[in-house]
Amino acid sequence: MALPVPLRGVIPPVCTPLDAHGEVDTTSLTRLVTHLLDGGVHGLFALGSSGEAAFLSDARRATALETVIKAADGRVPVLAGAIDTTTARVLDHARTAADLGADALVATAPFYTRTHPREIAAHFRRIRTAVGLPLFAYDIPMAVHSKLPTALVVELAEDGTLAGLKDSSGDDGALRRLAVRLGGRTARRTGPAPGFTLLTGSELTVDAALLAGADGVVPGLCNVDPAGYVRLYDAARAGDWERAAAEQERLVALFDMTDAGPESEMGRSSSALGSFKAALRLLGVIEHGATAFPQLPLSEESVAEVGRRLTSASLPPVR
Amino acid sequence: MALPVPLRGVIPPVCTPLDAHGEVDTTSLTRLVTHLLDGGVHGLFALGSSGEAAFLSDARRATALETVIKAADGRVPVLAGAIDTTTARVLDHARTAADLGADALVATAPFYTRTHPREIAAHFRRIRTAVGLPLFAYDIPMAVHSKLPTALVVELAEDGTLAGLKDSSGDDGALRRLAVRLGGRTARRTGPAPGFTLLTGSELTVDAALLAGADGVVPGLCNVDPAGYVRLYDAARAGDWERAAAEQERLVALFDMTDAGPESEMGRSSSALGSFKAALRLLGVIEHGATAFPQLPLSEESVAEVGRRLTSASLPPVR
Amino acid sequence: MALPVPLRGVIPPVCTPLDAHGEVDTTSLTRLVTHLLDGGVHGLFALGSSGEAAFLSDARRATALETVIKAADGRVPVLAGAIDTTTARVLDHARTAADLGADALVATAPFYTRTHPREIAAHFRRIRTAVGLPLFAYDIPMAVHSKLPTALVVELAEDGTLAGLKDSSGDDGALRRLAVRLGGRTARRTGPAPGFTLLTGSELTVDAALLAGADGVVPGLCNVDPAGYVRLYDAARAGDWERAAAEQERLVALFDMTDAGPESEMGRSSSALGSFKAALRLLGVIEHGATAFPQLPLSEESVAEVGRRLTSASLPPVR
Amino acid sequence: MALPVPLRGVIPPVCTPLDAHGEVDTTSLTRLVTHLLDGGVHGLFALGSSGEAAFLSDARRATALETVIKAADGRVPVLAGAIDTTTARVLDHARTAADLGADALVATAPFYTRTHPREIAAHFRRIRTAVGLPLFAYDIPMAVHSKLPTALVVELAEDGTLAGLKDSSGDDGALRRLAVRLGGRTARRTGPAPGFTLLTGSELTVDAALLAGADGVVPGLCNVDPAGYVRLYDAARAGDWERAAAEQERLVALFDMTDAGPESEMGRSSSALGSFKAALRLLGVIEHGATAFPQLPLSEESVAEVGRRLTSASLPPVR
Repeated sequence: MALPVPLRGVIPPVCTPLDAHGEVDTTSLTRLVTHLLDGGVHGLFALGSSGEAAFLSDARRATALETVIKAADGRVPVLAGAIDTTTARVLDHARTAADLGADALVATAPFYTRTHPREIAAHFRRIRTAVGLPLFAYDIPMAVHSKLPTALVVELAEDGTLAGLKDSSGDDGALRRLAVRLGGRTARRTGPAPGFTLLTGSELTVDAALLAGADGVVPGLCNVDPAGYVRLYDAARAGDWERAAAEQERLVALFDMTDAGPESEMGRSSSALGSFKAALRLLGVIEHGATAFPQLPLSEESVAEVGRRLTSASLPPVR
Repeated sequence: MALPVPLRGVIPPVCTPLDAHGEVDTTSLTRLVTHLLDGGVHGLFALGSSGEAAFLSDARRATALETVIKAADGRVPVLAGAIDTTTARVLDHARTAADLGADALVATAPFYTRTHPREIAAHFRRIRTAVGLPLFAYDIPMAVHSKLPTALVVELAEDGTLAGLKDSSGDDGALRRLAVRLGGRTARRTGPAPGFTLLTGSELTVDAALLAGADGVVPGLCNVDPAGYVRLYDAARAGDWERAAAEQERLVALFDMTDAGPESEMGRSSSALGSFKAALRLLGVIEHGATAFPQLPLSEESVAEVGRRLTSASLPPVR
Repeated sequence: MALPVPLRGVIPPVCTPLDAHGEVDTTSLTRLVTHLLDGGVHGLFALGSSGEAAFLSDARRATALETVIKAADGRVPVLAGAIDTTTARVLDHARTAADLGADALVATAPFYTRTHPREIAAHFRRIRTAVGLPLFAYDIPMAVHSKLPTALVVELAEDGTLAGLKDSSGDDGALRRLAVRLGGRTARRTGPAPGFTLLTGSELTVDAALLAGADGVVPGLCNVDPAGYVRLYDAARAGDWERAAAEQERLVALFDMTDAGPESEMGRSSSALGSFKAALRLLGVIEHGATAFPQLPLSEESVAEVGRRLTSASLPPVR
Repeated sequence: MALPVPLRGVIPPVCTPLDAHGEVDTTSLTRLVTHLLDGGVHGLFALGSSGEAAFLSDARRATALETVIKAADGRVPVLAGAIDTTTARVLDHARTAADLGADALVATAPFYTRTHPREIAAHFRRIRTAVGLPLFAYDIPMAVHSKLPTALVVELAEDGTLAGLKDSSGDDGALRRLAVRLGGRTARRTGPAPGFTLLTGSELTVDAALLAGADGVVPGLCNVDPAGYVRLYDAARAGDWERAAAEQERLVALFDMTDAGPESEMGRSSSALGSFKAALRLLGVIEHGATAFPQLPLSEESVAEVGRRLTSASLPPVR
């Protein structure tokens, strides 16, 4: 389907359920997509960090993306992460995603290597021209260890290289500066890059990002509670900021599930993604809560804690 | 004066004007305080990072604080930074501040050394008990290279060690989690630390912080445009979030002045503080725009750029 | 061929020459291997950071490795980098390397994601058991943004998971502590992990690493001057530390070529790898000096500087 | 006394023993200086990181420095740390040190603030000209979070601003590059900065630093075993690198005492400095093992572990 310009709404970074052998559980993934669409989301982002793209072999990535696209069935656009160290490798993923029918690509700055902004610009330009799909820059310094400079994003927005930005930097001040550079809340659509889409990857400051003029939101926690983020989005769009903030607060409390795994025992990724998957299993959406190897599993006690968080947030477990 | 509990409103981190010899220009500083009070601010924070505390000798710190307290003349509370590497050194500053009549203290976690959260807790507890003034924790990882853990702040809020937090971490997600842990927008005053004050040090996401439940704001740029931040604060308090966001956008554009000094030629601190002081000089508030040694001065061209930013933000230079 | 236990000597991380289209220039690569073997090296490490593995598609990686193995023709062992974000992806590269005839594997800790030491241990154990080749851990925090803890390396050395460590951390103090934990210069071969191989990736402190008990050295600059590093190695093995240090100093001066590209204009990776390749072209070893996209090319002036460095180090350019 | 040019030998960063009230225990400190001089050291560095300068009030700093100078009694030169955030504050410490009779000053780059290399250069130049004492730059990125660029040190060495460098960066490759830039092992004394002194702050790679051409060594662990470091230094000076390395290995094993305090329970500074002081107490040199507040004390079990390390290194506890 043609990607809306700008892309607006709630676009969850879809988790990738796995079976007992670490293979993509396509039945659970299909059910998860249904769960998200039933929640009212406006798009799907497959093979992002929450989708554990960094943990999936090429074959598993293709299976996951194919399953999401098939399950979405054209009802909402599907963005596909093309996550790899540098341009040539990203291009291989990007071409696969295009072949499988993705509606847009999401790529980070190069990582593993030390890169100059001019090299990052060349990277995005090459991807854009080599593959005929709208391209979103994925700003995620926690993973790639560089922050996309605001001036660089503006340049690539203005010249049409980028269709949008998914900001997972946690730097809401920089997001605000970018929004203002592009014209701000009232003039962005007539500014230097009128179709440019601003998305926040935050779970915790979605109301703030929307107040700042973001078009959409891509929160990992949305896998667990899509309807909640849609309510938050709708309240913000309606200008009911008090209601948006109240919904945000409920979701902030729910997000505490990501601390279920003790920091002394597992990585932060294992704990966060493990809690999302445990929640989805407790809610009856997916079959297994396992994260991809070598992430360590949540203990029974941690899973019980996830269950308590669900209950507190009015999302009672069904098993 | 007794510190309001909680402390609410706009509390600028007061710049410290210097004369041609690097000494505190008390006449200019007095005029700056008047400028801020005329703008409607609700408190003053002396000897913070914007006040160049890290650059001032003990004697100059005392002069600056004394001048601010005298100029405020009891009309608003004065918070005093007690910035130093570890507890014993902070205590010396804290006692001086108490003697000079400060209404509250602001202290960071230890820096220069590598410290454990339990040691940070002991640090704040010792400061609180040794000096009979309300104590605010200053969370500024950019300067001290550690982030105050949310659980630690909650613990020190609940047991009464901390009167509040000045969050200059730029991590608005963490600020939101803290606000929710303390009860959130509706229940924070009846929560586990009912009098605890949440302040954001951001210039760029003040509307968002207030939407999240912050009590007050401490933006360095407020030195330049106190009335703007007071308008933003008032709009937010009145629930007019659209107006708050519009004011915020104007201030975000004004904040671009902090990039006036090229990154290849000077430190980020020199550029930001230099632009604030250049603006205050152009507005006729202070006499000299010099920052403290060894910060490099803005070029004439950079000062002209600051002037253009002022004009764009409807704050025309008077010289 | 069977890998010597321990693996000793000079084992260059082989550069990957590219043609004008960015494809692996197998003729130049074959010539480079001959150049290295003629210089007296004791092994070859293909697809490391100096080999630009992070920039090569799977197909180009396979071509490069195949070419190196064929050119080595069993005269020295060939180690193959299996560089990717996490275990499943590393395994795909590792199996290809095994199929192509590599003698050992080199893998980093997971990157892009945030990982716990227990997860890193599981990662290396799974690779070791899934592929029947000796496994070297590649400690390169500059790229993967975590440092392998000494205790973890000791554990994986003792239980036979790791055949060795390639230390590119630049932390020579930690390398020394590891060497002593394993028994030190005199007792390491009878210590808890008698066959364990310690390799340093440093260009600049090779004499020091050998004095500390390292078995071998993997310096990127060795591509340019293999004979120099072999002389350094031989002097150290002969206990002639003064001669080793003198040779090291010549190579340190030669290493200044890596600064040929101005930091304001290109990434540090482009400058370093670009200078190695420019030098190899000037020496007549490879055809083109191009680095992989999106790295920026050295300017003519920078290439001339590389030429001057070669001349100063008694390696006069032939073109 | 006049400072030797260059300054050569073992120059321990003297610990600051404290009494039960946190005051400087001058009797123990005097005994510690005697212990160090008896061990054969060639100079003393007071008020460095190992001296807990960051934890001492101005009054305690003065007491500590005065005690060291008096105890040294002109037998070896005394260097004094002047550790503070920026120039004006450093100058106050520097003047006190000069008044108390220090033979040289040691200062870091500015910290707490974000500083440009040109500002760092101005900082050192101002200190040098304002106080008539030889000035050593203290490169300690772990504490000040910036690394002194090699080119900057060369510039300040050549123009006479700096008498030397104390390198506590742990980056032995950079130290090697600096040494070569200054002429290397054979030509440094006739190079661009003939009198410049290179000191390493490493405990673990002293033999390597001396092989690279360092003039002297400033290891914190030297407080515990001065005679060991002097033996290591003498062996290196005599060109007996095997004996130097063997002594270094014994000291590396002894350094494991710094891990006595569990990372989950205390800061790394507390554990390292706590272990040095516990060792000095067990050896009968100082009265109390306490570190400065808010550092947490070692447990009894950790102190016992320190004792075992001493015994293993042939330094049996006397209590």
